[in-house]
Amino acid sequence: MKFNLYFEYENKTKENEAFFNLLKEFESGKIGYYHLPESSLEFLNKDFSNIDYDEVMVIGIGGSSLGTKAIYEMIKDKNTKPIFFLENPDPIDIKRKLSKIKKPLIFVISKSGKTIETISIFKKVLAHFDLKPNSKNLKVITDKNSPLDKFATSWKLDAFHIPKNVGGRFSVLSAVGIVPLLAAGIYPKNLLLGAKEFRDNFFEKKEWHLCKKAAFYAENYKEYPINVLFAYSTLLNSFKEWYVQLFGESLGKNGKEIMPVGHIGSIDQHSFLQLLMEGMGRKTITFIKVNSFETPLIIPDIKLPYLEATDFVNGASFEELINKECEATKEALLAKEYPIDEITIDDLSLKNIGKLIMYYEMLTSAIGSLLEINTYNQPGVELGKTILRNKF
Amino acid sequence: MKFNLYFEYENKTKENEAFFNLLKEFESGKIGYYHLPESSLEFLNKDFSNIDYDEVMVIGIGGSSLGTKAIYEMIKDKNTKPIFFLENPDPIDIKRKLSKIKKPLIFVISKSGKTIETISIFKKVLAHFDLKPNSKNLKVITDKNSPLDKFATSWKLDAFHIPKNVGGRFSVLSAVGIVPLLAAGIYPKNLLLGAKEFRDNFFEKKEWHLCKKAAFYAENYKEYPINVLFAYSTLLNSFKEWYVQLFGESLGKNGKEIMPVGHIGSIDQHSFLQLLMEGMGRKTITFIKVNSFETPLIIPDIKLPYLEATDFVNGASFEELINKECEATKEALLAKEYPIDEITIDDLSLKNIGKLIMYYEMLTSAIGSLLEINTYNQPGVELGKTILRNKF
Repeated sequence: MKFNLYFEYENKTKENEAFFNLLKEFESGKIGYYHLPESSLEFLNKDFSNIDYDEVMVIGIGGSSLGTKAIYEMIKDKNTKPIFFLENPDPIDIKRKLSKIKKPLIFVISKSGKTIETISIFKKVLAHFDLKPNSKNLKVITDKNSPLDKFATSWKLDAFHIPKNVGGRFSVLSAVGIVPLLAAGIYPKNLLLGAKEFRDNFFEKKEWHLCKKAAFYAENYKEYPINVLFAYSTLLNSFKEWYVQLFGESLGKNGKEIMPVGHIGSIDQHSFLQLLMEGMGRKTITFIKVNSFETPLIIPDIKLPYLEATDFVNGASFEELINKECEATKEALLAKEYPIDEITIDDLSLKNIGKLIMYYEMLTSAIGSLLEINTYNQPGVELGKTILRNKF
Repeated sequence: MKFNLYFEYENKTKENEAFFNLLKEFESGKIGYYHLPESSLEFLNKDFSNIDYDEVMVIGIGGSSLGTKAIYEMIKDKNTKPIFFLENPDPIDIKRKLSKIKKPLIFVISKSGKTIETISIFKKVLAHFDLKPNSKNLKVITDKNSPLDKFATSWKLDAFHIPKNVGGRFSVLSAVGIVPLLAAGIYPKNLLLGAKEFRDNFFEKKEWHLCKKAAFYAENYKEYPINVLFAYSTLLNSFKEWYVQLFGESLGKNGKEIMPVGHIGSIDQHSFLQLLMEGMGRKTITFIKVNSFETPLIIPDIKLPYLEATDFVNGASFEELINKECEATKEALLAKEYPIDEITIDDLSLKNIGKLIMYYEMLTSAIGSLLEINTYNQPGVELGKTILRNKF
């Protein structure tokens, strides 16, 4: 995995500050996500083979589904059991999904254990499948002693716990992500190892680019209040949603923000590039590129009458085409003097995905600490919840 | 369909300017999309019943796929044939989709007739299904006399034409959207009628809110350079992508922009709301709400031990929950003094979708005309294309 910064910046004081802020969070043990690569190992021996199920159902919203979905979309293959995500109280979406699910293993996931959308959908699912106490096909993932956890105890259901000091949007490497992936037939040990490797390398000062990028972003948040992520693979579609939550909920506070915008290349070159090229600027841009996608898929060397102008890619692979699109777009935007960086992933292995996740979580923490905001809370969402309750 | 503006604004001169700019575009006939509700009627009698196919395949990118996908996702039901969109030169995405498609009716869609991603994917599909000249299962949709059109003639394939004066991102109501939808079993007459109805009402000055909103957006683009769309239904997921292309490629020019950001409620309340509530502001926000989703889906009146705090929604419908979430979020954001507007759709019928599409296209035209930019070109994407070609 390679991290390239295409902008000049040096501020040793701020870069060091980023490093030591993270080191302090890590060593104090107060911020839990740094330690998930070790603490989540316990889930790896979980065995679902005594349960009869054809699909995995995740009932959860936000931090309880986005990360798992991101990994699942990158990793799934023909041996993976399908995971259905019931994550929105949209009645048609719920009906469409329920009509496809016959024999599920169900995970109800809510850190607080009382998320209104999640519990409401759960009630519908409970009635739909006529679930009863003691059901092997129903599990919960939540904080210890949360309302949902106590419900699980009273119904004699398996419960998997999220460490108290791991926030929802930082929880993908906890039981929240690990357990449903296992149930779908994905053995996520390398995910944890990859995350651990990135973290350890960082604290050995081998990933200094992160400190530099965080320092630049924090110092210039007024000039560059937007970060555009351009991920060059359809498989990263949910990953970009996860990134949007991570940045948006962590870094929009106290009148400061770095607004995340996620795009997929090359599709969104046909959508958003014009605005980047000729609009108002004021954005940092991050490219994610995947070097190799399983076995190469070749663009056949077919010459079609009148379409000769497209033959220059004949015989190349789609890998080559999509990555050269990424390069070309990057170069065009560099000419506009955007602060650009690029993350190059060899392939979408679990190990690399683990690294990428830990990278983004630590980057978020570093920027937040330099912006002097609380990266880990979300006080702004409470008002809406109070208003909602008063509407019933 | 209701359009509510929750901000005070009056500038009769600018509002009138928006109106008359659009009237001029419409009456001059130079901008084609206004006339699609009439000119696309010719496609409605197209009959695919003599062709043997189980799936529809759309090979197209950007304006050649986003709009069709948006409508398909809102409308599809168990009687609709599946539409697969091959829209990215991502090798795994292509492989995954090809493995699911057995007997397709294929539409190759490119306005210019030489889009490199589209033609490359087409060559792969051509080899995969061993397609030959005269194939009934292969059609093209493109501009008359484009390279792809000439290819179709030489291969004796059916070709459907996009009017020259209809840009890609404004083409969803042309053959680009109408023909594949028809092939999937969706009869889109009401889509065209809805679009026509909105357009005609507008020119009878019955949709003045559009002029007001456009005038406000254009006059304040420096203070509010971002428009956040919060659509409260999973079914609007691709619609928001369509909107992002429409705004982004039309309104990012000459050092000006209104940057579109699309979100889905209530999912993204758990992702992006914090930043809106406590970040840097400077955004306009648009809510889209769907009043009724087919037959209501009720949250069962189930009381679960320890989860009593969620019982306040028991017996309500999911429609009610998701729409009250929308209301609550809107009220919370109104307290932060954002310029907010809300579009309320009775239901996701073809007629209402047609209205919504025409509304957004005309809104884009109105804002663009007041910003004094060329809404319909995209000169900024050419540099990347030139760089790409030189990489092979």
